[in-house]
Amino acid sequence: MVSVATLGSHCALQVLKGAKDEGFETVLICEKKRAGLYARFGFIDRTIPVDSFSEITGGACAEALRGHDSVLVPHGTLVSQLSSGAIEDLGVPVFGNKFILRWESDRAMKEKMMRESGLDVPAQAPDPGSISKLSIVKRQGAAGGRGYFMASSEKEYRQKRASLVEAGTISESEPLYIQEYVGGVLAYLQYFYSPLSGSLEFYGADRRHESDIEGLARIPAEHQMPGQVPSFNVVGNSPMVLRESLLGRVYEMGEGFVEAAARLAPPGMNGPFCIEGVYDASGKFWAFEFSARIVAGTNVYTQGSPYSVFYGEPMSMGRRIARELREAEKAGRLGDVTT
Amino acid sequence: MVSVATLGSHCALQVLKGAKDEGFETVLICEKKRAGLYARFGFIDRTIPVDSFSEITGGACAEALRGHDSVLVPHGTLVSQLSSGAIEDLGVPVFGNKFILRWESDRAMKEKMMRESGLDVPAQAPDPGSISKLSIVKRQGAAGGRGYFMASSEKEYRQKRASLVEAGTISESEPLYIQEYVGGVLAYLQYFYSPLSGSLEFYGADRRHESDIEGLARIPAEHQMPGQVPSFNVVGNSPMVLRESLLGRVYEMGEGFVEAAARLAPPGMNGPFCIEGVYDASGKFWAFEFSARIVAGTNVYTQGSPYSVFYGEPMSMGRRIARELREAEKAGRLGDVTT
Amino acid sequence: MVSVATLGSHCALQVLKGAKDEGFETVLICEKKRAGLYARFGFIDRTIPVDSFSEITGGACAEALRGHDSVLVPHGTLVSQLSSGAIEDLGVPVFGNKFILRWESDRAMKEKMMRESGLDVPAQAPDPGSISKLSIVKRQGAAGGRGYFMASSEKEYRQKRASLVEAGTISESEPLYIQEYVGGVLAYLQYFYSPLSGSLEFYGADRRHESDIEGLARIPAEHQMPGQVPSFNVVGNSPMVLRESLLGRVYEMGEGFVEAAARLAPPGMNGPFCIEGVYDASGKFWAFEFSARIVAGTNVYTQGSPYSVFYGEPMSMGRRIARELREAEKAGRLGDVTT
Repeated sequence: MVSVATLGSHCALQVLKGAKDEGFETVLICEKKRAGLYARFGFIDRTIPVDSFSEITGGACAEALRGHDSVLVPHGTLVSQLSSGAIEDLGVPVFGNKFILRWESDRAMKEKMMRESGLDVPAQAPDPGSISKLSIVKRQGAAGGRGYFMASSEKEYRQKRASLVEAGTISESEPLYIQEYVGGVLAYLQYFYSPLSGSLEFYGADRRHESDIEGLARIPAEHQMPGQVPSFNVVGNSPMVLRESLLGRVYEMGEGFVEAAARLAPPGMNGPFCIEGVYDASGKFWAFEFSARIVAGTNVYTQGSPYSVFYGEPMSMGRRIARELREAEKAGRLGDVTT
Repeated sequence: MVSVATLGSHCALQVLKGAKDEGFETVLICEKKRAGLYARFGFIDRTIPVDSFSEITGGACAEALRGHDSVLVPHGTLVSQLSSGAIEDLGVPVFGNKFILRWESDRAMKEKMMRESGLDVPAQAPDPGSISKLSIVKRQGAAGGRGYFMASSEKEYRQKRASLVEAGTISESEPLYIQEYVGGVLAYLQYFYSPLSGSLEFYGADRRHESDIEGLARIPAEHQMPGQVPSFNVVGNSPMVLRESLLGRVYEMGEGFVEAAARLAPPGMNGPFCIEGVYDASGKFWAFEFSARIVAGTNVYTQGSPYSVFYGEPMSMGRRIARELREAEKAGRLGDVTT
Repeated sequence: MVSVATLGSHCALQVLKGAKDEGFETVLICEKKRAGLYARFGFIDRTIPVDSFSEITGGACAEALRGHDSVLVPHGTLVSQLSSGAIEDLGVPVFGNKFILRWESDRAMKEKMMRESGLDVPAQAPDPGSISKLSIVKRQGAAGGRGYFMASSEKEYRQKRASLVEAGTISESEPLYIQEYVGGVLAYLQYFYSPLSGSLEFYGADRRHESDIEGLARIPAEHQMPGQVPSFNVVGNSPMVLRESLLGRVYEMGEGFVEAAARLAPPGMNGPFCIEGVYDASGKFWAFEFSARIVAGTNVYTQGSPYSVFYGEPMSMGRRIARELREAEKAGRLGDVTT
């Protein structure tokens, strides 16, 4: 029987607790500075200590993982710490499809995948000079919202960008991505696609809490300082459910994504993923990002999401992953759920 | 044994899953365009396909329901799609009291029921000319918040109304309801009254996420555009609990409502209902609406609400309804929980 | 076997339900005006009726509690209704450390404890004349946020203070506490420290809903009235989880608090406590309060928090307290978990 491994951050607790509950041995790749944190939990069987996650690409870590016959569950920390090439070359089986992570990391590929999925994506401004309405300016990678800002004009763009460069948040030469700002209710749609059963599960939705933009809501207009640059640094998540009449489109978007992924990034979107966006005033969903692996927003549902009860036994996304692995192992189809 | 039926929307998943968990056969009246969505779930035993929900009033649908010996669980979609008279004339047993739904749909009756219940209701402005402070302008029916807007003066009222008419959101002649705006913490109070045990359960509270008004909180004052008309389109819900010292009044309001309903709309407020309003700065609750049936906000609690554990076994509101039906059937009192 | 007692408010339902689930007899000290509320719940075995909670300091109540061999679980209502001296002199065993409650009630002691714990605390303005940036002005005790206000200058401080005195919310002579305002994502960090196992559990986090400041987020800037004084009256709570990479510091803060409490307030921080603050734009946590006993925010988790599953069986904080009592009783160490 394989073991389940992941990096010590992001959603490691949920992933390894779920694996343990499904009967797997659990392995944590852990930065030494965080060893104390993870030592608190009884469901982590083995730890592979590293000085920094960049060591994962060295042969020693992969060897240790192979020694434990581990399947690595990728999450946001893996994506932000390693290049797409490095992830593909790890030399250990990765749950889901490691090749699709490249489509998450590159803005151009990401946008292509979203359009091929039939998602409605807010218009992109090709350059600062073409900013004509309220826009949000984003960085390339999964920076967790740090360094994002809003601007309504080229002048404002230049002022804010300069202040972030001065503060050291972004570098002088960093290319930024400018997208039309769509206001409304933000929602992060969590899915699980099972290649074993060929079926898609809408698992749940969450809201993100970002600092300090969220705090703005509690500051009267008279106290807000013009020209300040609120940040979008993700601090946490909380649960939400969607109006049931929106679920038809939610599944349609998920199916569209699964189909596009099968075409563009074989073997396709196996396992958990997330489509991230905003419901506008008419209830239309505008997608601005996706994550092609488990998202941290599923951490709110360690006892199961409101929707997970509809598929049978309520369970965390971490456990859902482990359940898939267990069924694949039983059916001799491990190769269908890993790459 | 009866079966449990409902319309495919709003909270159908929760209602039928709860019914299944209580051992009932489940029946879904389903618009053909949504058949794919509901086919995903294993707990729906029978489907009555319709082209549109308006067909429900035709004899064929009622006949099919009678063929399954169904009790129909009413929810917001039934209320918004059918007239009160049509609901009363369906010719199938309805869970709770179908006659009270008329009091929910008509603004004047609704306000009378709320005042007779002893609820504090924000002042109504009889006409646009009497708007003297920040007010919210609402449509008559259960429109899910679409077309609602805020105004501080007659002039602003006329401008915004005109812009909504122009956008086709409301019609030129549509009568609107103007209510003083009370700011604070919005709360939707979910109750269940059991005519079998004669007792009231405060089941839980939720918050609504409305677009695009919710997005306003993330737009700095300098970027907000004066004269824009934010919408109150409900997109989803999330959980909350109330300060325990508020619960005394919460039960008092619920009991007041149950008593008023027994007087004004026999056989009274049987089953789930919701009182909707806002806690002001002094912790006083101002009620601005009620729903005389299950609300979609209970969808957040498919595994049971924080308060439901205090009554014994935690369960969804859908299952609570089914449990009541089951106990009524056992006691030969089905007539006490249906109309 | 001891019984578990608490005051009828704040989190009494959760505490007594948890005690019942652990097999304890439960005792409620109940104001007569709230007897009807608590009579609704089947898990409350005995009630000690009082006209007002101030009666608790009289001998009769303590005698009744001793008659039931009760351990009193302290919560926010006890802290706000009784002086620290009165709590220490109650004459009944108190769960956790009754002596540390004094450190929660006194602003100067509270700040000392927080600094000794190694927490980052926003700067205090010693007097209104030194207000130079956006600040929040607070009252001394646990007033639940009533009478708190924001000010950016001495002039604004004086105007708003005068308007609150005029409204009768605060008294003319009441000393206020002025703290630099830190914007961001508010978070209330809930912990449990077990003196039996010598280990700290991060139990969960919650968000507070305060009226009418929360309502501000839904009022367009053009409709906000300058000079208005929003209030911070806590009405309810909702769940949230934190970014996993923040958990290292969360435990470090909790451990720092436990260590400081052991030094400053023997026998230390036994049982539940809460550190309250805000995550700023860089993800740094600024602590502005603590509660040295169970907080009402744990009421959101009557079925267990997202983190409680990581310690084994998910349970409410009320049940966690009762579990500790039960284990202490079994081990003959009741004296280690009460004072």
